[in-house]
Amino acid sequence: MPVLLAPDQAPTLHELLAAANTVGLDCKVVDTSAEPKPRIRGLGSLQFAGVEEISFLSNSKLQAQLATCRAAAVILTPDVFQATEGQALPYTAVLCSQPYLMYALLAQWFDQHRIDHLPGGIHRSAVIDASAEIAAGVSIGPQCVIEAGAKIGAGSRLGAGCIIGTGSVVGRDCLLHANVTLYHGVRVGDRAILHSGVVLGADGFGFAPDPFKEPGAWAKIAQLGGVSIGDDVEIGANTTVDRGALEDTVIGHGVKLDNQIMIAHNCRIGNHTAMAACVGVAGSTVIGERCTIGGAAMVSGHLVLGDDVHVSGGTAITANVGKPGRYTGVYPFAEHVQWQRNAAVLSQLAQLRKRVRHIEKPEH
Amino acid sequence: MPVLLAPDQAPTLHELLAAANTVGLDCKVVDTSAEPKPRIRGLGSLQFAGVEEISFLSNSKLQAQLATCRAAAVILTPDVFQATEGQALPYTAVLCSQPYLMYALLAQWFDQHRIDHLPGGIHRSAVIDASAEIAAGVSIGPQCVIEAGAKIGAGSRLGAGCIIGTGSVVGRDCLLHANVTLYHGVRVGDRAILHSGVVLGADGFGFAPDPFKEPGAWAKIAQLGGVSIGDDVEIGANTTVDRGALEDTVIGHGVKLDNQIMIAHNCRIGNHTAMAACVGVAGSTVIGERCTIGGAAMVSGHLVLGDDVHVSGGTAITANVGKPGRYTGVYPFAEHVQWQRNAAVLSQLAQLRKRVRHIEKPEH
Amino acid sequence: MPVLLAPDQAPTLHELLAAANTVGLDCKVVDTSAEPKPRIRGLGSLQFAGVEEISFLSNSKLQAQLATCRAAAVILTPDVFQATEGQALPYTAVLCSQPYLMYALLAQWFDQHRIDHLPGGIHRSAVIDASAEIAAGVSIGPQCVIEAGAKIGAGSRLGAGCIIGTGSVVGRDCLLHANVTLYHGVRVGDRAILHSGVVLGADGFGFAPDPFKEPGAWAKIAQLGGVSIGDDVEIGANTTVDRGALEDTVIGHGVKLDNQIMIAHNCRIGNHTAMAACVGVAGSTVIGERCTIGGAAMVSGHLVLGDDVHVSGGTAITANVGKPGRYTGVYPFAEHVQWQRNAAVLSQLAQLRKRVRHIEKPEH
Repeated sequence: MPVLLAPDQAPTLHELLAAANTVGLDCKVVDTSAEPKPRIRGLGSLQFAGVEEISFLSNSKLQAQLATCRAAAVILTPDVFQATEGQALPYTAVLCSQPYLMYALLAQWFDQHRIDHLPGGIHRSAVIDASAEIAAGVSIGPQCVIEAGAKIGAGSRLGAGCIIGTGSVVGRDCLLHANVTLYHGVRVGDRAILHSGVVLGADGFGFAPDPFKEPGAWAKIAQLGGVSIGDDVEIGANTTVDRGALEDTVIGHGVKLDNQIMIAHNCRIGNHTAMAACVGVAGSTVIGERCTIGGAAMVSGHLVLGDDVHVSGGTAITANVGKPGRYTGVYPFAEHVQWQRNAAVLSQLAQLRKRVRHIEKPEH
Repeated sequence: MPVLLAPDQAPTLHELLAAANTVGLDCKVVDTSAEPKPRIRGLGSLQFAGVEEISFLSNSKLQAQLATCRAAAVILTPDVFQATEGQALPYTAVLCSQPYLMYALLAQWFDQHRIDHLPGGIHRSAVIDASAEIAAGVSIGPQCVIEAGAKIGAGSRLGAGCIIGTGSVVGRDCLLHANVTLYHGVRVGDRAILHSGVVLGADGFGFAPDPFKEPGAWAKIAQLGGVSIGDDVEIGANTTVDRGALEDTVIGHGVKLDNQIMIAHNCRIGNHTAMAACVGVAGSTVIGERCTIGGAAMVSGHLVLGDDVHVSGGTAITANVGKPGRYTGVYPFAEHVQWQRNAAVLSQLAQLRKRVRHIEKPEH
Repeated sequence: MPVLLAPDQAPTLHELLAAANTVGLDCKVVDTSAEPKPRIRGLGSLQFAGVEEISFLSNSKLQAQLATCRAAAVILTPDVFQATEGQALPYTAVLCSQPYLMYALLAQWFDQHRIDHLPGGIHRSAVIDASAEIAAGVSIGPQCVIEAGAKIGAGSRLGAGCIIGTGSVVGRDCLLHANVTLYHGVRVGDRAILHSGVVLGADGFGFAPDPFKEPGAWAKIAQLGGVSIGDDVEIGANTTVDRGALEDTVIGHGVKLDNQIMIAHNCRIGNHTAMAACVGVAGSTVIGERCTIGGAAMVSGHLVLGDDVHVSGGTAITANVGKPGRYTGVYPFAEHVQWQRNAAVLSQLAQLRKRVRHIEKPEH
């Protein structure tokens, strides 16, 4: 990766480990050489890390790369370290039972360090209604619009071009990247990260047939509910969460939504559930806690998925799922000609079963 | 739902019914108690409506909730009302043969009431070209951009950050929420509702192989057509409608598009057709009137779908559909292990049929 | 199509052919009538082109329309021209071995002519950091934001409301339509076309389980890489390309991405690969050169697709694909009732195979 920090701003390994918020994680530093140690200017993969960077091994398939890694330090488990004892590792070993989590926390430190250097304050081009409440330490980028009665909590940062609708509330220490749009009546908890193009609070898709206008015409059902987002939620670029028809659409604490996801009106998503990109959840569906929904999966409306349900990418969930576990429904791909042959039979599958029945019981 | 109106702004039930545009609907108010009636400050579900709200019963599955509903008034059919005659209903009954449509029209009234109280006029931060034509009663939010020759019809409202490209036309009484983008040469009819992140008129995806540049290189086909949107259309957040290659891409009157939909260049969508979220329609496809396309369905390019065709969510339509009716093609989901077993057979389905044939006619 | 040019700005056919960049293409003009030739004010389909427009025949299915076409000139192959020799064609014939490519190049000329007439320069409402580097001949639309250290190459045009993040680089002669968002650390090559709603450089979706917070909680993995886009790339409306976790996400030269596509972190897309709308590519997947990915297809993460792989629309690619060719996996749609019957059998397919086995070898 690009080295993040100038040499005079980079920490030593021990300074880095002390500065990063690694509370709870075990950590033991083992120097196998007596050479002077470089400062840590960044973080890299085993393959690409430079001599002033720290790396990590979390995927055992990459263990062979340990031998050629050029990093200043590598995070690895005590077990792996013991297994390599014969080799004189050319870097400092940071022993930790959870290298991937340790890496996550160090990467957060580097990213936070970058953010701390961004300009703060409220840009003169932002349009902020006199009745909006902007807490201390908030920064608001150029061309933002904060409408009447909106509230922005302490320490939150809004990138350029964000729009916060009438009466909407953003909690403390949130990070809204550029061009996030909140309609009126949207509530976002603390420490949210909202990416560019996110739209919270657009009208849910609700219509009643209106035979008095014209055959086939639709009457709009005004969407009078709002959107309620918990604490510690991250929402990816161009993802949309619609407002409820009467009550709020609810996203629980710690939920992580990737890009281009659609959460329809009246849905309730349980705490710590994570969804990969391009997922669609139709209206009024309730999804439990700690679920994972794979990319481009689709969940029909008015369903209930329990806790700890894991949906594979590309799967259409069309019925309630009560039991924890992994669920899949993906058409296996093949070379086109082979697919054609099988698909032709699939279209007559009921017929094929009849033929098998007939063989089994010719009298029928 | 959050109570919408302050007590002194809330109507009585009779004022509400008179103010809402319920033309054509039958409506009979039956007071079963002599107690003084509260003003109606909002609208809620049977389960959650408060004592100053009106509710409705349109789904017979919820009929049991009638007994415990706390609302000031409930809309229900004369049939249901008769069936409950034994009970002394603790609220005013509003009898109507179409409670869902009545609810839609009352919800519109509440929403309109909110909109009427928003600030109007043209915000000083908006950038409006001198050659643009802005009709009477138009409101244009902060940070909007109206380019040369664009026209905005009377009574239309543009939220913050909307961009109307050169020569594009927005009809009368339209509502563009924040951050809507219209390219040049886009025409939108009257009473449209466009949600945040909508992009109308981006280039269609057209390329010709250009062997003179490099093997595999593409030459762009400039998209010279426009986009034409009928009257009474609603388009959901982050939905895109591309401009035509030579002629316009056309969205008919009364069409309703949910969020994150993609309508490719040269498509023509018939009047009153509705599409749920995440649908993709590929280029030059023509879809008839009064169709419904379920969420995440996909329609291939250069197809013709007739009137009154209903496509289930998640279905890929890959051939013309002439006959009205419902069409489906969704892989049934299952527990992962069970799916794996079946999918393995699916990949050899032609083989399985051969085996059945061989059993039937061993000589082959 | 709408006639683009005023009569006094329109070229003669020969001026048009000389002005358009048709280098490498063969071209022979055959006048079959002695009448005076109109100027060419636009470009139209065989069916709709007007008498002052040029048309083309590239799809042999449309050959019958040649007889009734009203265009001033038609591009067609020498072969087709010879076959029509009997008829006295009422327009000038432009003979070219590749009419579709010729049409693409002429359409580019008309579009460029339009763009050349747009206002240039830097709009006073744009917010440009003093440390940004804006090259000569750049135009920057109203309400744009160019952050610290960003660079815009010579001749590039930014539509209204674009946001270029800290230190990001846009190459020469790029066209960014309105409301494009680049995060920090994004590099775009020369001659890129980025459509409205594009977001480049949002955080990849990376989390490590964090058991120290709460069961099921996630720790964010800061995304420290960037996005690198090659030359001659076009990216459609509302498409997102996420930044890499440690290295850059890489889009090769000449890649064409349609609308609403999601390219996840760490992906590498090879030169000249084209993807239709609504495709999702999950993290760390590598796709080769000259591939085509059909609309709404999905590619799982950590895969490798070789060069010249063609994926049908709606297909889920869940394993590596080394061999060039076409790959498909789409559930065939049918009338709903018929689908129901077949899908029921599909859910018991392994069972059915067992029954066939048992018939074949009853002793098992």
